[in-house]
Amino acid sequence: MPRYKLTLEYDGTGLVGWQRQKSGLSVQEILEGAVERFCGAAVTVYGAGRTDAGVHALAQAAHLDLPRTADPDEIRGALNHHVKPHAVAVLAVEPVAESFNARTSARGRHYRYRILNRRAPPALERNRVWHVGVPLDAGAMAEGALHLLGKHDFSSFRDSLCQAKSPVKTLDRLDVTRLGDEIVIEAWARSFLHHQVRNMVGTLKLVGAGKWSPAHVKRALEARDRRAGGPTAPPQGLCLLEVIYPDAG
Amino acid sequence: MPRYKLTLEYDGTGLVGWQRQKSGLSVQEILEGAVERFCGAAVTVYGAGRTDAGVHALAQAAHLDLPRTADPDEIRGALNHHVKPHAVAVLAVEPVAESFNARTSARGRHYRYRILNRRAPPALERNRVWHVGVPLDAGAMAEGALHLLGKHDFSSFRDSLCQAKSPVKTLDRLDVTRLGDEIVIEAWARSFLHHQVRNMVGTLKLVGAGKWSPAHVKRALEARDRRAGGPTAPPQGLCLLEVIYPDAG
Repeated sequence: MPRYKLTLEYDGTGLVGWQRQKSGLSVQEILEGAVERFCGAAVTVYGAGRTDAGVHALAQAAHLDLPRTADPDEIRGALNHHVKPHAVAVLAVEPVAESFNARTSARGRHYRYRILNRRAPPALERNRVWHVGVPLDAGAMAEGALHLLGKHDFSSFRDSLCQAKSPVKTLDRLDVTRLGDEIVIEAWARSFLHHQVRNMVGTLKLVGAGKWSPAHVKRALEARDRRAGGPTAPPQGLCLLEVIYPDAG
Repeated sequence: MPRYKLTLEYDGTGLVGWQRQKSGLSVQEILEGAVERFCGAAVTVYGAGRTDAGVHALAQAAHLDLPRTADPDEIRGALNHHVKPHAVAVLAVEPVAESFNARTSARGRHYRYRILNRRAPPALERNRVWHVGVPLDAGAMAEGALHLLGKHDFSSFRDSLCQAKSPVKTLDRLDVTRLGDEIVIEAWARSFLHHQVRNMVGTLKLVGAGKWSPAHVKRALEARDRRAGGPTAPPQGLCLLEVIYPDAG
């Protein structure tokens, strides 16, 4: 059966996240419904990672096996038609080798977290940002972020539901930048623990607000205990920007 | 009665526009309701310009007269509380002279129009962009835009419902820029005719798609006839970015 890679954009608002669940509508269920309406067969769509409820994606990756070969443009057009009215878009479809697996072939993930840092609540970006009304020092947050770079046991930033075998991950980059009223945090790693980005952001927010020193982040990391880390930042500020593969497919 | 200037952000999706109307909920009605809950009096909120249904604002300006003097931070906090759950935010409140009028004191307006130019429909920016699936040549659009700069009779880009006394306006800048999958069009003028920005964008889209030459824009302008201009671009791509005043208030 021919395998295809999908590149996907979605608005996570109101969805239960990537993964199919009985509690509500997921991106996976929306896509699998569209695939079934397109090709008449029940097909599983495998994502590169499970985004949480309310988390967005500008370029999630996934793969699926179709019962027959089809033109990638035809697949993309048909899926974009059949996902309506949901806020999911298939940006690209590419034929890939049967050995390609969206999750295990991935060599990196790139996430962005947006904090709206002003007194007034968001209007236009309401479901896209975390509103923090107290002034945050982005420079201090960037300094705190440096302590998280590299290979560490990230147990202090790991959700209790995390299914990863090991809490050791390598954080390649963690950039904190102020852009006007926004603080943008971007994180790159081969893979992340469950809630790791949101837990790192919730911790850096404590630094930005002056409740923690930047060096406190190092102590929290070294504690290897979730209770030592900061709170979990809310989901709507998070967006999966890119999944990186060794080559084009 | 003390006068205050408001700076406002709003998501125009689902609203009938700035101005109070019987057909549905407007930004003005939302704000006037919040002001009444704050100060107990029916107060008119005067906007710098009437945005259409579905059009957004990052910094609309308005003024109002309150029955008593109040701290600007208190007013902002109270109005942001009382506008809930609507997607309207009061970014700033400033005391101004009684001679200040949001509409007539304004010396400039700055609008942005976003076109999402890719095959796949929008997911995250669904109510924020005009989706154009055919490839557009932003360079040709920029060349066409040059013909609109300066002082002209803009009748070819004026809605039949426009109430302006004269169709003559001075367009100070009209920039067309491609940013990845997006084409961003920004327009600056002291004031615009009704639908002028959307009609200019609808015209430039014809140029971008190769249906019109850039020089055809000049001929359309010189015809001084709405039937010579291009179609009206849809509202959701338009956002009022700024209203410019001679000084801080």
